[in-house]
Amino acid sequence: MFTAEIIAVGSELLTPFRMDTNSLWLTDRLNSVGVEVKLKTIVGDDDARLEETIRDALKRSGVVVLTGGLGPTEDDITRKIAARALGRRLSLDERVLEEIRAKFLRWGRKMPEINARQAMVMEGAEVLPNPNGSAPGMYLEHDSRVVALLPGPPREMKPMFDTHVLPKLASRAGGVRVARRVLRVAGLGESAVDERIAPVYTQYKNPQTTILFTNTDIEIHLTAQGKTEQEAELLLDGLSGQIEERLGDAVFAFRGETMEEVVGLRLAVGGFNLAVAESCTGGLIAHRLTEVPGSSNYFMEGVVTYSNEAKTRLLGVPEEMLERRGAVSAEVAEAMAEGVKRRASTDFGLAVTGVAGPGGGTQEKPVGLVYVSLADDAHTEHRRLMLPGDRHLIRWRASQAALDLLRRRLI
Amino acid sequence: MFTAEIIAVGSELLTPFRMDTNSLWLTDRLNSVGVEVKLKTIVGDDDARLEETIRDALKRSGVVVLTGGLGPTEDDITRKIAARALGRRLSLDERVLEEIRAKFLRWGRKMPEINARQAMVMEGAEVLPNPNGSAPGMYLEHDSRVVALLPGPPREMKPMFDTHVLPKLASRAGGVRVARRVLRVAGLGESAVDERIAPVYTQYKNPQTTILFTNTDIEIHLTAQGKTEQEAELLLDGLSGQIEERLGDAVFAFRGETMEEVVGLRLAVGGFNLAVAESCTGGLIAHRLTEVPGSSNYFMEGVVTYSNEAKTRLLGVPEEMLERRGAVSAEVAEAMAEGVKRRASTDFGLAVTGVAGPGGGTQEKPVGLVYVSLADDAHTEHRRLMLPGDRHLIRWRASQAALDLLRRRLI
Repeated sequence: MFTAEIIAVGSELLTPFRMDTNSLWLTDRLNSVGVEVKLKTIVGDDDARLEETIRDALKRSGVVVLTGGLGPTEDDITRKIAARALGRRLSLDERVLEEIRAKFLRWGRKMPEINARQAMVMEGAEVLPNPNGSAPGMYLEHDSRVVALLPGPPREMKPMFDTHVLPKLASRAGGVRVARRVLRVAGLGESAVDERIAPVYTQYKNPQTTILFTNTDIEIHLTAQGKTEQEAELLLDGLSGQIEERLGDAVFAFRGETMEEVVGLRLAVGGFNLAVAESCTGGLIAHRLTEVPGSSNYFMEGVVTYSNEAKTRLLGVPEEMLERRGAVSAEVAEAMAEGVKRRASTDFGLAVTGVAGPGGGTQEKPVGLVYVSLADDAHTEHRRLMLPGDRHLIRWRASQAALDLLRRRLI
Repeated sequence: MFTAEIIAVGSELLTPFRMDTNSLWLTDRLNSVGVEVKLKTIVGDDDARLEETIRDALKRSGVVVLTGGLGPTEDDITRKIAARALGRRLSLDERVLEEIRAKFLRWGRKMPEINARQAMVMEGAEVLPNPNGSAPGMYLEHDSRVVALLPGPPREMKPMFDTHVLPKLASRAGGVRVARRVLRVAGLGESAVDERIAPVYTQYKNPQTTILFTNTDIEIHLTAQGKTEQEAELLLDGLSGQIEERLGDAVFAFRGETMEEVVGLRLAVGGFNLAVAESCTGGLIAHRLTEVPGSSNYFMEGVVTYSNEAKTRLLGVPEEMLERRGAVSAEVAEAMAEGVKRRASTDFGLAVTGVAGPGGGTQEKPVGLVYVSLADDAHTEHRRLMLPGDRHLIRWRASQAALDLLRRRLI
């Protein structure tokens, strides 16, 4: 199998403010044709360090991808230093220069003379056109190594890589195809997930399984290799099916969809609509649902009732219930769900009330205590949760639990 | 000035799913004592590549910080390979082993024998205690280079670096102190910001100015060096004052605060409260406001009125106004702001209506057309905006513009 190194060039990537995110995307693409990334370097506008980095990469790896440093200024050193490291001449390509000039004309401007630098091409390199910017890329094969120079801005880099670099790598990589799938899990703890599925996934080297415990989700990443895409997909189907068998309903997405996409699709397919009443989540559930295009077909309205007075006025929660049980209680959660459903005349009413912290917790009702409730025409149910984390995480997890309650009802 | 390289170790950092975020934090800390980061490498659990990386780093840089690869398994190679690259013996330190054993006992478990590996210490290294995990770190000086081995998990790495590494670097770095400040700007375009302040900031090499145009904000980062922290802060005060003079109200934060924090503080200080009515932002404004701890003191309620029926029922927007003007109009935005203020009996009512897309746009009311409106006891105003971007960005920018309208009223 081919191995690759990625070199990101630019002093701004060595500040505390910017990171090289291109490499994640590139890694995914390289992996997809069976090329493994073995090292990533981030180097500034520093001639000596960049030259050494390129030389070292060529010694070790079959594919070297450079991003950034192709701009028109003195600071953009990638062209010059790559040529030096490869021992190739750099010269002005009149045809490329004309294309850059023409591009500026189309943008309604005269090409600044400084941009002529972007028409400097390495001996033996193929020039990669850049429809989304002024800097062309370069591709060359050197001592059986592949070297690609790509611009830094993602919207220029990505189409250039997919159009001009990936097909060449795919044919050199000898027909290995890699397929991936991301399963997402809700309502189960980390150790429960691993306990249930380890007996299955540890039996396979292909597909490979990685379980990621993010702050907000459990993701199961499956990666399969095959001679064809179909072969790889079939391997994924097999393992994914076994995992689903062991986790059941807890798997809410098989292609990396978000919870709000999954819930939205089920609402749309069923022809149902929804209203939401939120206290501690403060609008997050409504926000998540309405991030999905087309959500206006099923999301009718939301209310964020922080004050007790608003819970009574907007949702009809009885004052004496709020006094007797407190705003954070199963009764109030159910009254909120029923109230928002009734007033909005929707099929479902979804509600959350809880203590997100950092203040406001008591011994009886500590930070992290959350009730979620769902009402439909037939009945109303609730769940009591004790959620770990800070304010931000508690709110996010409460929104996820509420949406998951609705998802399970819609199955 | 000292220069540093950061080496992150771990094969998971070479997948498409995880990035090395430790290095941003480390860069900030290193910069703060005048140490500049010149190169970052991400390397897998790969003996040869890691050894070469460490050797190269030692040739070039005064400080080499390694993170990750200090776990107890075979895959955790940092200790072994660092010792090899530095030509130092690695041997079991009985005292460190006892400490690890004791730590596991405190956690209510017996130390797995495999963790004994974490007590292997390099000849001449200072062992750095890890109160938050089992892996101790190491610090050593080697041929006038500083080498630090730190665990990968941020909550273990950060306190260890701050407690044991930073003070040593600060004293070696010879008393240079670096201070930073982040100014945030709303309501001005990128070129307008640069045009107004370039004549000022280009006159200074210290503080250094970086303008970051993120998708959602314009940030002005100022970095000053001084012999003392006070000296650096004074330099920041000077330039920050001049920038404020040129940008006026458009600067909403001087210490990196978020818009919702700034607005929340002004509401709290003034003793005002607020209700919010949202259409296209779908709960995002309520969500942002309530992310701030203590927001229940001033945020009373929010409504997300997606349907026209809800705009009439919950906010009292006249049906015939919705028919005549359409839901996305200045009149409806103002009626929403006034309606939510009146019904919630708050000092302010804030409202948004618009077309977030991707569907729903017309020639007359295209995707990106947004009205924000603010009502108080004295009067009601609105702004008409044409926002660029996709659904997610349009919604975010609309929420920012609405909050900014309120912020300016509160000045």
